[in-house]
Amino acid sequence: MALHELSLVAMVAAIDAGLCTAQDIWADCAAQIARCEPQVQAWAHSPRLEFPAAASAQSQAEPGALRGLPFGVKDTMDVRGLPCERGSPIWQGRVADADATVVSLLQTAGAQVMGKTVSTEFAYFRPGVTANPHQLAHTPGGSSSGSAAAVAACMVPFALGSQTAASVIRPASFCGVVGYVASMGMVALRGVTPLAQSLDALGLFAREVADLQLLHSSLHRNAALPQAAPACLPRRLLLVDGSLFGAVEPCMSDALHASADQLRTLGIDVRPASGLLTDALLQEATRVHHRLMAREAYENLAFESSHHRDLLSPQIQELLDTGRAVSGAEHAALLQSRAALARQLDDALAGWDAVLAPAANGGAPQGLGATGRPDQSRAWQLLGLPQISLPVATDPQGLPLGLQLIGRYGQDAALLATARALQERLGWRAVLPPMVR
Amino acid sequence: MALHELSLVAMVAAIDAGLCTAQDIWADCAAQIARCEPQVQAWAHSPRLEFPAAASAQSQAEPGALRGLPFGVKDTMDVRGLPCERGSPIWQGRVADADATVVSLLQTAGAQVMGKTVSTEFAYFRPGVTANPHQLAHTPGGSSSGSAAAVAACMVPFALGSQTAASVIRPASFCGVVGYVASMGMVALRGVTPLAQSLDALGLFAREVADLQLLHSSLHRNAALPQAAPACLPRRLLLVDGSLFGAVEPCMSDALHASADQLRTLGIDVRPASGLLTDALLQEATRVHHRLMAREAYENLAFESSHHRDLLSPQIQELLDTGRAVSGAEHAALLQSRAALARQLDDALAGWDAVLAPAANGGAPQGLGATGRPDQSRAWQLLGLPQISLPVATDPQGLPLGLQLIGRYGQDAALLATARALQERLGWRAVLPPMVR
Repeated sequence: MALHELSLVAMVAAIDAGLCTAQDIWADCAAQIARCEPQVQAWAHSPRLEFPAAASAQSQAEPGALRGLPFGVKDTMDVRGLPCERGSPIWQGRVADADATVVSLLQTAGAQVMGKTVSTEFAYFRPGVTANPHQLAHTPGGSSSGSAAAVAACMVPFALGSQTAASVIRPASFCGVVGYVASMGMVALRGVTPLAQSLDALGLFAREVADLQLLHSSLHRNAALPQAAPACLPRRLLLVDGSLFGAVEPCMSDALHASADQLRTLGIDVRPASGLLTDALLQEATRVHHRLMAREAYENLAFESSHHRDLLSPQIQELLDTGRAVSGAEHAALLQSRAALARQLDDALAGWDAVLAPAANGGAPQGLGATGRPDQSRAWQLLGLPQISLPVATDPQGLPLGLQLIGRYGQDAALLATARALQERLGWRAVLPPMVR
Repeated sequence: MALHELSLVAMVAAIDAGLCTAQDIWADCAAQIARCEPQVQAWAHSPRLEFPAAASAQSQAEPGALRGLPFGVKDTMDVRGLPCERGSPIWQGRVADADATVVSLLQTAGAQVMGKTVSTEFAYFRPGVTANPHQLAHTPGGSSSGSAAAVAACMVPFALGSQTAASVIRPASFCGVVGYVASMGMVALRGVTPLAQSLDALGLFAREVADLQLLHSSLHRNAALPQAAPACLPRRLLLVDGSLFGAVEPCMSDALHASADQLRTLGIDVRPASGLLTDALLQEATRVHHRLMAREAYENLAFESSHHRDLLSPQIQELLDTGRAVSGAEHAALLQSRAALARQLDDALAGWDAVLAPAANGGAPQGLGATGRPDQSRAWQLLGLPQISLPVATDPQGLPLGLQLIGRYGQDAALLATARALQERLGWRAVLPPMVR
């Protein structure tokens, strides 16, 4: 296995064992970028292919858990001195004057930015140029398109994303990697272009859940070493088949039910949610998400809308028009509904380790003109819950299919431990695209 | 009464009646700035004393509810093309490349930025240069020091602030003006330097509650004209005497109880909260606020802490050191506690129109080296509730004393209507400093 194909945890272990240096890994990732980038176009701007001097000094002196290793940063997130254009011509040439909080924290933990990855316009629907590394005529999903594709194509071991509707879980599913959305508010979003203040949350992409555990520990400065991060099989999982959210394709439905059966053979109690989580609750959560996102996007893009409306896509303009029609009184009512729904869901989840559900309606749709539907994520995202997408199967065209685990608010570490155990016991590994080998 | 002393609503009415133009009011405010600014030092950078051409065009063509009138913007909030230095030498010379959402929305409603007002360092404790217009040897409070002082000295009819602990309610009380903190999340904070993502909320200062109603309508594009915004006497108020939060001075305690007696003469049921809102709940909320603020400030200032630690004040460094010691697991637990406390408080407030409590421990302390204690606000701020500070009395030194009304989450319009009625019925008007006349 080439160095760039190693997981983040394996890279750290290889460095610590003296098998290679961080510089060797950077060189391998850079070569992989040279090989795949012309087709995939994951990067919004030319990445830094040279191993940075700062990382070199740091990796020798006091390496930090992340050993000077490279990562990708969605182009809606600021990195000092690098462009941050937010997927919009309005911000062409904008250079950030500080690092986003999450970038600073990862740098303090020893990682180094390799570059900025393609985002859809303001993390909404208008796609950038990125292709799905598995099949170049298919979307990688969005809005964190470049981050998902770069990790799938092994250009970097991990990358940052953000999610307001389904911007991490969906591209992770489409690209065959692991995606994680943190509980809302658990990581500061300073320096991340906001889309909806009540919905935006931080996301990460990697190829192994253990990598996410290491990153989670690094961001939260918990002492745990990656080797010590637990894998913990769940006892009880609630199954939501996703049909109430949208048209789930048969291949996804089959993957969900086959996975549930596999889980049951491990002695896990996997039970359909009907009755426990009523459809009405989840449908209402989806409705509230739609309206809240429109209203808050209208606020957050007030500057662009005032000064550069002609440079906004029809998709964004339609969203803002919808949002403009949501009154302040409705906004307040939506936030109150959210609080009530969160209470109900929290009660319904008591005693359950997680919800298991489709991460998307099916495999990545053909075409680069759209990024697929966010149906399967809106309800969970509204409630600010931690979510992890795991690759579990492929569709008839060989494209990856992901399932998601949804945890309880603030219980990110427990959810990661659950996902780790399932990945290891059931072999739910990242699906590498043919171009990697 | 001079034009600059008029309330915002009265300014709008005067323009509409043809008694004066927005340009006349700008000129009067500019003259007032020239008169008072040398002593008060409310402005972080030279304000725009000339009536802006954009406002002129706008006020003639399609004036908007706010008629081209001027406002002040805390120097932690971005205004395109103006400096935004965040009260820190680290950001000296930084110029913003976009308007904060709230600035954009107010501009769309027809208002125009007069300039940036002094903030404490990153909206925390280290004061700027601003003095209290009532007595120059006393603090105006913080962190929105300049905004409160500028409105009190009638340099502008209204100004923007933000609150993470007590950064609006306390300076409003100390300066004798009306301060309002919006329900958390009700207004997007894009372009506002964050301090703690779970606690930051938007604030406004004005001299009349009716002005805040007009601004609230403008921000939320509700159709209501200022004249139509309701005043609505409450039926039931819960009294929290604040003694469990900190050492309330006798003058404040007297003001609270005298006000409660006045309210009772209007037939309002004003009842001590003991038993209904247990001290334990409010003390726990204060504890959680302390820890959460430290943890999240540590995240939000990660960039400054990494690159410019020597330029951070001892106060901020101490906060960040405290925050660094809050683990990710504790952070999650704090957010879960907050959710549980919010539930309990929401239950306790059912059937009550608002809580009435001291806005600060007493009048503005002497000295410009500190901004006073935030004791009286932490619990309410933790829970993201709307808050309004009203000037009700003066202390033995003639300094203003404020009481605050705390409403239910999302019920900002109702709380404003309550505050309006109390201000009008009880004469709780802004206390103008001697220098105004």
